[in-house]
Amino acid sequence: MRALRLTDGVLQVADVPCPSAADEALVRVEYAGICATDAAILNGYANFSGTLGHEFVGVVETAPDAGWVGRRVVADINVGCGACCACAAGNARHCPRRTVLGIRDRDGAFAEFVTVPAANLYAVPESISPLAAVFTEPLAAACRILEQVAIPPGSLIGVLGDGKLGQLIAQVLRAHGLSVRLVGRHAGKLRIAEKLGLQVQTADALKTATHRFDVVVEATGRADGFADALRLVRPQGTVVLKTTGREAWPLPSAAVVVPEVTLIGSRCGNMAAALQLLAEQKVNPLVLIEAVYDLADGLRAVEHARRPGALKVLLRMASAAVSED
Amino acid sequence: MRALRLTDGVLQVADVPCPSAADEALVRVEYAGICATDAAILNGYANFSGTLGHEFVGVVETAPDAGWVGRRVVADINVGCGACCACAAGNARHCPRRTVLGIRDRDGAFAEFVTVPAANLYAVPESISPLAAVFTEPLAAACRILEQVAIPPGSLIGVLGDGKLGQLIAQVLRAHGLSVRLVGRHAGKLRIAEKLGLQVQTADALKTATHRFDVVVEATGRADGFADALRLVRPQGTVVLKTTGREAWPLPSAAVVVPEVTLIGSRCGNMAAALQLLAEQKVNPLVLIEAVYDLADGLRAVEHARRPGALKVLLRMASAAVSED
Ligand SMILES: [Zn+2]
Ligand SMILES: [Zn+2]
Ligand SMILES: [Zn+2]
Ligand SMILES: [Zn+2]
Repeated sequence: MRALRLTDGVLQVADVPCPSAADEALVRVEYAGICATDAAILNGYANFSGTLGHEFVGVVETAPDAGWVGRRVVADINVGCGACCACAAGNARHCPRRTVLGIRDRDGAFAEFVTVPAANLYAVPESISPLAAVFTEPLAAACRILEQVAIPPGSLIGVLGDGKLGQLIAQVLRAHGLSVRLVGRHAGKLRIAEKLGLQVQTADALKTATHRFDVVVEATGRADGFADALRLVRPQGTVVLKTTGREAWPLPSAAVVVPEVTLIGSRCGNMAAALQLLAEQKVNPLVLIEAVYDLADGLRAVEHARRPGALKVLLRMASAAVSED
Repeated sequence: MRALRLTDGVLQVADVPCPSAADEALVRVEYAGICATDAAILNGYANFSGTLGHEFVGVVETAPDAGWVGRRVVADINVGCGACCACAAGNARHCPRRTVLGIRDRDGAFAEFVTVPAANLYAVPESISPLAAVFTEPLAAACRILEQVAIPPGSLIGVLGDGKLGQLIAQVLRAHGLSVRLVGRHAGKLRIAEKLGLQVQTADALKTATHRFDVVVEATGRADGFADALRLVRPQGTVVLKTTGREAWPLPSAAVVVPEVTLIGSRCGNMAAALQLLAEQKVNPLVLIEAVYDLADGLRAVEHARRPGALKVLLRMASAAVSED
């Protein structure tokens, strides 16, 4: 089968044997999404080699439990060791020996087939199209914020970054009835959010503002976005960090200690919660799709996804045509 | 009266008029403590000029309410505007227009007399000596951690930094029944803590350790201490930041986001809680006193306090001799 692989720092579409794992489900991938984490990995983050890709939707080809066969699925990307304290507590996401699809010691979904433990699968309801379902993983990451931070009614939340992650986060928080401002630097992208009824502000308009938000979600992935977050959060407010990269940001300790700000790192979330938002059409990720490439054009797709300001670039596998109509 | 003042970046013992403020209490200072924040201010932090000093104990000379006169007191160092939302919520510490004793727009206590609003005063019980009471403010700052972080029983807490702040924090957390390890680089200082029955570890012994503590309190005030904190906290654990300075520390976002760590800034705390710990003799700050200088020798005292590794240096005012026996 074809797979988009990173080997010794070189990315290429390679012909590799179809994966197999007797105790896991084999999923025929339909679509996969390229995200900022993939770009970070290509820049050396996580020291990964193998098949990239952790955002995907597909159809189960084989599984230990035949009940899964033929079902459209998405999957939790963290696979715990099953033996440690974290795993025993049902917290495989923080298992020290976990593998992570396309990120850590496990081939990902930029391929025609991927294997995943059946326990990680989530069935996609019929009402959700594959093109929407491929956003389940990043939507779950957005939902994660609400599991971590108790946000009282009446709070104002600033989401910094009008890219694909910031937009999904703003949509998810709004879907939960919260007051959100999406703050960005790109008129075109802010317009996409506005069309969905989101309230937006240009970063420029907030250049000298301070203490504007009860909660700030940093989704720019840049040092200046982090500096903006520290400036815009109110005293005793919370800054949620959603992006990973190799570069360190400057943290002025006084800017955290004096206003007693809380910073919280936030990663993967609840896939079921994300599927429910999609099923209830409370979010609309389709507006964020900028391009869809065939897997064979994977290099061009990645190049496109890495352009500054690119929204979501998807990979379409050969099987996708069959499953859509 | 004499006061140790910072003017145009120059520190000196000056003769200045005795302060007066009809609506505030006038306190005759007995002792004042020099802390890392004072050193930071001398390095340019907070852009302060005036009389330094925020850790003190003294006796009320005059007050709008005569009931205070003659009483030994300590004081909350934050003075709110009284008119804003923060002040209305009883949260003067985060009033945007607050003054702060010896730190922000208000003369401090390195002087024979200081004025403070009566609302900020706390009477010192007879059982607490002035030399112990002068530690009330930093002890309150240590107590603040417990107001901010819910620490479940059975948690292990690492306090990084065997200086005066780290030692007080370790004592306070232990006094609340928590399991604490004081981590430091100075055998002599760790011995002080050990003599009080605290468990200590050398930073060297933890050089390659990871995920060792549920909660880490950063009290070194240094970038390498912050890096140690991120390495030693367990996934989903909490790092409490207790020190302020001008320098920014490198924050590797992945080290916060992937393990979903919480960082929380922590500043001033509850003076009454600190006085209670002192009254119940659950903490022993006296072991941290390294030197006591007369106010007239203020420059030498500050020089001593700024030596790397110095423990607590106190200033004694002329009135102290009278009130001690
Ligand atoms: Zn992703
Ligand atoms: Zn495990
Ligand atoms: Zn202090
Ligand atoms: Zn106020």
